[in-house]
Amino acid sequence: MKVAASRKEHFNAAHRLYNPQWNDEKNSAVFGKCSNPNFHGHNYEVIVSVIGEPDPDTGYVFDMKLLSDLITEHVLTKFDHKNLNLDTIYFQNLNPTAENIAIVIWRILRQHIDSKYELKIKLYETERNCVEYPAH
Amino acid sequence: MKVAASRKEHFNAAHRLYNPQWNDEKNSAVFGKCSNPNFHGHNYEVIVSVIGEPDPDTGYVFDMKLLSDLITEHVLTKFDHKNLNLDTIYFQNLNPTAENIAIVIWRILRQHIDSKYELKIKLYETERNCVEYPAH
Amino acid sequence: MKVAASRKEHFNAAHRLYNPQWNDEKNSAVFGKCSNPNFHGHNYEVIVSVIGEPDPDTGYVFDMKLLSDLITEHVLTKFDHKNLNLDTIYFQNLNPTAENIAIVIWRILRQHIDSKYELKIKLYETERNCVEYPAH
Amino acid sequence: MKVAASRKEHFNAAHRLYNPQWNDEKNSAVFGKCSNPNFHGHNYEVIVSVIGEPDPDTGYVFDMKLLSDLITEHVLTKFDHKNLNLDTIYFQNLNPTAENIAIVIWRILRQHIDSKYELKIKLYETERNCVEYPAH
Amino acid sequence: MKVAASRKEHFNAAHRLYNPQWNDEKNSAVFGKCSNPNFHGHNYEVIVSVIGEPDPDTGYVFDMKLLSDLITEHVLTKFDHKNLNLDTIYFQNLNPTAENIAIVIWRILRQHIDSKYELKIKLYETERNCVEYPAH
Amino acid sequence: MKVAASRKEHFNAAHRLYNPQWNDEKNSAVFGKCSNPNFHGHNYEVIVSVIGEPDPDTGYVFDMKLLSDLITEHVLTKFDHKNLNLDTIYFQNLNPTAENIAIVIWRILRQHIDSKYELKIKLYETERNCVEYPAH
Repeated sequence: MKVAASRKEHFNAAHRLYNPQWNDEKNSAVFGKCSNPNFHGHNYEVIVSVIGEPDPDTGYVFDMKLLSDLITEHVLTKFDHKNLNLDTIYFQNLNPTAENIAIVIWRILRQHIDSKYELKIKLYETERNCVEYPAH
Repeated sequence: MKVAASRKEHFNAAHRLYNPQWNDEKNSAVFGKCSNPNFHGHNYEVIVSVIGEPDPDTGYVFDMKLLSDLITEHVLTKFDHKNLNLDTIYFQNLNPTAENIAIVIWRILRQHIDSKYELKIKLYETERNCVEYPAH
Repeated sequence: MKVAASRKEHFNAAHRLYNPQWNDEKNSAVFGKCSNPNFHGHNYEVIVSVIGEPDPDTGYVFDMKLLSDLITEHVLTKFDHKNLNLDTIYFQNLNPTAENIAIVIWRILRQHIDSKYELKIKLYETERNCVEYPAH
Repeated sequence: MKVAASRKEHFNAAHRLYNPQWNDEKNSAVFGKCSNPNFHGHNYEVIVSVIGEPDPDTGYVFDMKLLSDLITEHVLTKFDHKNLNLDTIYFQNLNPTAENIAIVIWRILRQHIDSKYELKIKLYETERNCVEYPAH
Repeated sequence: MKVAASRKEHFNAAHRLYNPQWNDEKNSAVFGKCSNPNFHGHNYEVIVSVIGEPDPDTGYVFDMKLLSDLITEHVLTKFDHKNLNLDTIYFQNLNPTAENIAIVIWRILRQHIDSKYELKIKLYETERNCVEYPAH
Repeated sequence: MKVAASRKEHFNAAHRLYNPQWNDEKNSAVFGKCSNPNFHGHNYEVIVSVIGEPDPDTGYVFDMKLLSDLITEHVLTKFDHKNLNLDTIYFQNLNPTAENIAIVIWRILRQHIDSKYELKIKLYETERNCVEYPAH
């Protein structure tokens, strides 16, 4: 049986939900106040889980210090204290919903974590709203 | 791979654990202080997860505002500031344990959420006790 | 300068807000759903702070184990898994608002804690509503 | 002795720290990444405390439902899902630091709460950074 | 469909990460400050989940009071306010990483919980680091 | 009126409560399991509050980045992943109770924060036990 080892980090970012193929009226109807043209923001909490067998020499599935460093280097430096729509390459043509942010983080980190490990992302946009990818 | 999108809501309710087929002595032996005849109560936290594919137009698996409205309309208006045993139709013949409350909430919401989505309920009765349905 | 030492405990209780000098209509107008005749309930969290000088021999202002025991004996055994209106002597003629519950707990514990210490009670009725007595 | 009664609410907003009398270099030196020109954002939590004597008829210092409504009407509708710098009148010439946001909220609510009550604002900008006004 | 019922408990313990087959230099290189020779410590939170069908007579998957008692008797009395390396039999030859602590707790409790139930352990070493066993 | 600005940090440490002027029996009678000879440990959370007037140019009472750096340099590097009794100079002759740890942190930081500011320390030893210095 495998063990999941998880690390929580956070970033503070501005964003706006917006589909450029729709007019402002439709964006406002679908996304409500989340589509405010001047943006709003969140304290995002991201929990990254790496699933595998503990190494017999260390007792670690994955070194949490290393996982924290990978998240910092590849995610936080790009997203923390940024405008997700304007300051990142990832959401130029992709709506920065919690779902899409989680999928983007998964794709970024997947390149830096050996494929022998499963990878899961849980993202809290607020204390009440969160997403998990993949769901199972 | 699918995404789980989750919304947390809460309700404050009174309840009493009690099996009408048992006498008071047996109810007290099995349920302890949870069977206090004059009821006790909890701040219940319910986390509803909807699992599916993000919609390509919105980036949402499910609109969290709509999910919140569905929970409010179909669950909170029935359970919040109520006595679960006396004020609801669901626990007239069903013991209002956390397990049964979660199953009842799942059955209520299942009727209002398209079957293309999986549905999960996590219910905290206290900070230390919670249940999840279905478990997998 | 003095140190405040605080211990958090909790109890789960049913209650109803109700002024017996008012008719049902007025109770409902003033207290809303908190006046539901069949009660509702909460997971109350109570934080008891004792303020004084650390003892030079122990380094304690007050032994937290002893404080926990005092709260358990004099408060939790009376309030936990009870109906505050029906099962306690304190709220027979006193409305069990958070304010009044905090004052009652302060009066109970004041008798068991040496007057050389200041005593403060913070009571969370929900995660969003709390009271503190005395305020300063 | 008085009782403090507190209500927690939240709003999600974008902001940027910036002193218009300084050039970009100095703003960046003083405010670091908090001065990102395209803004960043937070889930702000605001705890409003009203301090006074419990009313003998209700047992309330202040009706928490009414306090929640006042915060919603006078603060949340102005700040929630907004850009504090661009979308509000309060921070056109005032840097939206946590300190200044708390003082602004205090001044707004002070006009709607009877002067017989003391008023305090605690504002969490992140889980790790918060301010309280007035401090005593 | 089955229900998962979970109970959270905690213990406060000292530990040191150390592989006796490595010299001090290598232990320090791999485990960093977690290998401090004089130990450090944590407030561990352990969430034990029992998965099964609710009993039709009680509405319980598993009595949370009984689960709490089992955790206390078989885990907390051995680990709480102890040095995991020096005061327990489990980590004499096993590095007390979060992964290994979770596996040890699973093996201990597995002997006391009927095999008709699935069993899962989630262990928080800090608010930011946690493990889950089994992962699925 | 002044503003309090607060920063939360944490450290993980081992400690043992022990009065060298008492024999083991008395230490055990007074401190119970907290006097375990091989130590136990905690995730300490420390909240440092600086009280003063917001600077008109920055809107800050105190730069939270600078406060975090001061806490890290003068407190965390000395206490984090250490044995408070054996690895620090502060508790060679002082019992490392929460009260004494808070007073020591206050004395350390007082030297690095201008006397025009008031300084307060709140220290959580566990989620349930905390101290505040000074109390007022």
